[in-house]
Amino acid sequence: MGRITPRHEDYSQWYLDVIREAQLADYAPVRGCIVFRPYGYAIWENIQAAVDRRFKAHGYRNAYFPLFIPYSFIQKEKEHVSGFSPELAVVTIGGGETLEEPLVVRPTSETIIGYMYAQWIQSYRDLPLRINQWCNVVRWEKRTRPFLRTLEFLWQEAHSVFATYEEAEEEALRVLDLYTDFAVEDAAIPVIQGRKSESEKFAGALRSYTIEAMMGDGRALQSATSHNLGQNFSRAFEIRYLDAQNQMQYAWTTSHGLSTRVVGAVIMVHGDDRGLILPPRLAPIQVIIVPIWKGEEERSRVLEACEQARRMLQPEIRVEVDAREEYTPGWKFNEWELRGVPLRIEIGPRDVTERQAVLARRDQPGPQGKRTVPMDGLREAVQETLSAIQADLYQRALAFQKAHTHYPETYEQLREAVADGFAWAWWCGSAECEGRIKADTTATNRCIPLEQPGGQGRCIVCGAPAREMAVFARAY
Amino acid sequence: MGRITPRHEDYSQWYLDVIREAQLADYAPVRGCIVFRPYGYAIWENIQAAVDRRFKAHGYRNAYFPLFIPYSFIQKEKEHVSGFSPELAVVTIGGGETLEEPLVVRPTSETIIGYMYAQWIQSYRDLPLRINQWCNVVRWEKRTRPFLRTLEFLWQEAHSVFATYEEAEEEALRVLDLYTDFAVEDAAIPVIQGRKSESEKFAGALRSYTIEAMMGDGRALQSATSHNLGQNFSRAFEIRYLDAQNQMQYAWTTSHGLSTRVVGAVIMVHGDDRGLILPPRLAPIQVIIVPIWKGEEERSRVLEACEQARRMLQPEIRVEVDAREEYTPGWKFNEWELRGVPLRIEIGPRDVTERQAVLARRDQPGPQGKRTVPMDGLREAVQETLSAIQADLYQRALAFQKAHTHYPETYEQLREAVADGFAWAWWCGSAECEGRIKADTTATNRCIPLEQPGGQGRCIVCGAPAREMAVFARAY
Ligand SMILES: [Zn+2]
Ligand SMILES: [Zn+2]
Repeated sequence: MGRITPRHEDYSQWYLDVIREAQLADYAPVRGCIVFRPYGYAIWENIQAAVDRRFKAHGYRNAYFPLFIPYSFIQKEKEHVSGFSPELAVVTIGGGETLEEPLVVRPTSETIIGYMYAQWIQSYRDLPLRINQWCNVVRWEKRTRPFLRTLEFLWQEAHSVFATYEEAEEEALRVLDLYTDFAVEDAAIPVIQGRKSESEKFAGALRSYTIEAMMGDGRALQSATSHNLGQNFSRAFEIRYLDAQNQMQYAWTTSHGLSTRVVGAVIMVHGDDRGLILPPRLAPIQVIIVPIWKGEEERSRVLEACEQARRMLQPEIRVEVDAREEYTPGWKFNEWELRGVPLRIEIGPRDVTERQAVLARRDQPGPQGKRTVPMDGLREAVQETLSAIQADLYQRALAFQKAHTHYPETYEQLREAVADGFAWAWWCGSAECEGRIKADTTATNRCIPLEQPGGQGRCIVCGAPAREMAVFARAY
Repeated sequence: MGRITPRHEDYSQWYLDVIREAQLADYAPVRGCIVFRPYGYAIWENIQAAVDRRFKAHGYRNAYFPLFIPYSFIQKEKEHVSGFSPELAVVTIGGGETLEEPLVVRPTSETIIGYMYAQWIQSYRDLPLRINQWCNVVRWEKRTRPFLRTLEFLWQEAHSVFATYEEAEEEALRVLDLYTDFAVEDAAIPVIQGRKSESEKFAGALRSYTIEAMMGDGRALQSATSHNLGQNFSRAFEIRYLDAQNQMQYAWTTSHGLSTRVVGAVIMVHGDDRGLILPPRLAPIQVIIVPIWKGEEERSRVLEACEQARRMLQPEIRVEVDAREEYTPGWKFNEWELRGVPLRIEIGPRDVTERQAVLARRDQPGPQGKRTVPMDGLREAVQETLSAIQADLYQRALAFQKAHTHYPETYEQLREAVADGFAWAWWCGSAECEGRIKADTTATNRCIPLEQPGGQGRCIVCGAPAREMAVFARAY
């Protein structure tokens, strides 16, 4: 195994080291693209299952729309085209011939889905319509970083249509709650729900909502977004319906996305200097059993007890026995710690005799994270410990977020605050004030939190009256 | 609902009508691409789950490799480039600038995966390596047909690496068995396992295996393929390993794919003039409950009984209640028959009183497919009936395949045979004889079946001695 740079030395390098050493991803031979290796992809599969289940419970059905979008579609919504044009990958040759109309590799699918919805929707009886797709998208980013920002990434994009503004607005907030529930319950990541400012919102949206999470270096990561698109796309693509009075109306649409960057969030929120720490609900391997033995006689007894433990835990718990003979137990401990397996079970010859096993928590290295449990109650003890790890990881992340959240009252304090973490500050709402903070500190307006303290104050930049607080932070 | 053309009138039109009316797919605004609508995509999700489970049991892990492949990669394996070059979609512009090296949208991923495997594999201890990915691929086809042949399609492609020829050959056959097991057990489709002839094999393969299924019009559909790639890709991409004697060796690789064309196979193998018939294991809705009532008093009693039935069946069985008030029961019967739901449950006021329900099988329309069962035993009765439908669909398809399989002894008989279905015939192995059949009848050499009758004969075309029989058929 290679060395992992300590976080305090170089956080960016620590992140790259963890991804490489835990075999989550590798650089692809195409600039800005990564290969999701099996261990990294398995985390994404668990994220997918957790998010997909929630969308289905919310009445969404999965479908699949084409990868290629006619160039003219992108141009139909004026903010959309100016936002996405610089980032497009364009197919100009197909089957050896130059195409009459170039095809865009989807950067997002509002346009082509809008076009199809216009065919499918005739009357108010066809509404609401809720469809989700899991797919790859491509955005030609200049600076890339594994999982966080790559030319191609994987995501789900959900697209809905409603008869009224109110329903669309309610859906945008409802799906934001869905994402929050996933982040908190499955990823053990505390998030701030908020509205994006005009300059940070999605190109073509009426209003964008976001969940923002704090990474281990105090920076923010936009972890999912939910947009009320108003009638912008329904007017561009003629998504109309006959209402109950037989009048033709433009529909109201929404879109909602969560991507593989969440894998990056999981790494950065929970990891430590030993490597990855995975929340049990997303861990491909929740429990690793490491046999400890010397000599042939011990070997067979110990391995048999390990297999017995595995059978007691499966299939509810994702468990593996590491029976490799070319590595020592100590080497295996290090490797599985590096790869973030939440719980290790050690079984040695004395444990076999005493019908017991040692549980070692990944999130509490050293003696205080270890306890010996009887084999008879192994399953319950493991389940209880995994639940405790899941809960503790969330609490630890929440405490970290609170410790690095500040309420500056002066511009000078704001500068210091964003060097450390999140800064809540009164903001007048102007793009100029937002822009000045960005120019001075590189911190951006992450969101206007939905939960406001109430009352009012003065803009931290210009001193004008302000009715809302915004969260400023350096971001990935 | 629109009209479905009877199969005997125009089989191609019947196929398109079923896809449209059952809302499986729709044409996209990009030539040759389709939109998978939720009902069609749900069938694919069930296929994915059934295939994925089998691959994981065979030791495969999922990963994800980039959509874009450098143009130079495609050119490294000489047969691969000549096979795929005419079908490529090429990205030449990224982020507003012309790319130095154009990027190919993957038509298949042997090249980019081979490149990565060369980095990951050092010694014999890294072998065997088995990875699968679920993704979209693009092939610039001239003539397209929903599900069967589209510019973009969805599939799984599994790629493995072995130390020896024997292991690679064994894997190719082992995965062919995996696909066969899926086809028979889940899709209820009988298939012929065979080897592709030299002219029909995968571009770059040493040997290609296939499962061929007979559609409802007697044509063949290649339903999955499994390739022994020999050392062609390991030499092109330097996939090498140090063996136990510390000697550098080229590895042996395989690849294996099954795509969304299987959805087309399910439609064509099982459907009838009323529409789709879905095998229960792949049906998004296995059971539809239709309430039958008149007036408010009956309505509440009947709906309550329907909900009760639903609760008895869930979650093991995928069941829905069709409580829509704007449609009559008869209209609903037609719609769910058209959409291929394997089993309908009818509950009317008398059934509520007698605590019973009526089961109606989709595969046996009319009175002989109906029976009344007591509510108390509903779950068992439904499970048993779904199993019977699954088994009967397979037997019916097998009987159809046998009835349309011929053993011509003269070239004239061969011509007649391929007009009706499959023709088993002795074949000398020459591309000329294969080519003559194709030119004369449009039938192609589907495969040399693994199960041969034994003995030998004379080539049905040239009369030369032949040691193997091949299956000739018109194909999709
Ligand atoms: Zn201001
Ligand atoms: Zn011949």
